[in-house]
Amino acid sequence: MPKPLKHVFVCSQQRPNGHPRGSCAQKGSEDVLKRLKEALIKRGAHKRIRACGSGCLDLCEIGAAVLQEPDHVAYGKVTLDDVEELADCVVEGRVCERLVVFPEKAP
Amino acid sequence: MPKPLKHVFVCSQQRPNGHPRGSCAQKGSEDVLKRLKEALIKRGAHKRIRACGSGCLDLCEIGAAVLQEPDHVAYGKVTLDDVEELADCVVEGRVCERLVVFPEKAP
Repeated sequence: MPKPLKHVFVCSQQRPNGHPRGSCAQKGSEDVLKRLKEALIKRGAHKRIRACGSGCLDLCEIGAAVLQEPDHVAYGKVTLDDVEELADCVVEGRVCERLVVFPEKAP
Repeated sequence: MPKPLKHVFVCSQQRPNGHPRGSCAQKGSEDVLKRLKEALIKRGAHKRIRACGSGCLDLCEIGAAVLQEPDHVAYGKVTLDDVEELADCVVEGRVCERLVVFPEKAP
């Protein structure tokens, strides 16, 4: 059964302006997701690597937050300028070290 | 920095009635997500295990689809009746074998 082998989750949480936690959507995550989907299509990788929006990843403090799975690393403060490099990394099976805020550890 | 160590993504994709791919939301995924969040809170595990809605995981054929990361396994046809067992498994660091549709493999 064909299916994505990797998922890249871009937090799409929106909160009202002035909310103390802020939100990834306020920090441009929706455009990041759109551009990342395009970048994966451009590389012919969108069938095996799926870019998805997600609800709050509880990583608000590093928004716009992106989670690369199953590598299980979190990228922080991701902007449109980072998307092409991020796409290259994930397509080549690498972690984009420059953007890693913390490598997550399984419990 | 406190952060979730595990994420459980519940596909929240909605499509119009009659759409050939169907959608996880039509198969009850929104209630599954709500109940799963409650189940994690009840177990005091919601700080280390995050249940999130997500955009289409591209697993429509097994909806309602749930992805447990970083274990990287996909659960299929998940219903409200499965949620307590699923929560027990993820809290105990196990995979809920009964619900696994396929263990995903990293590329």
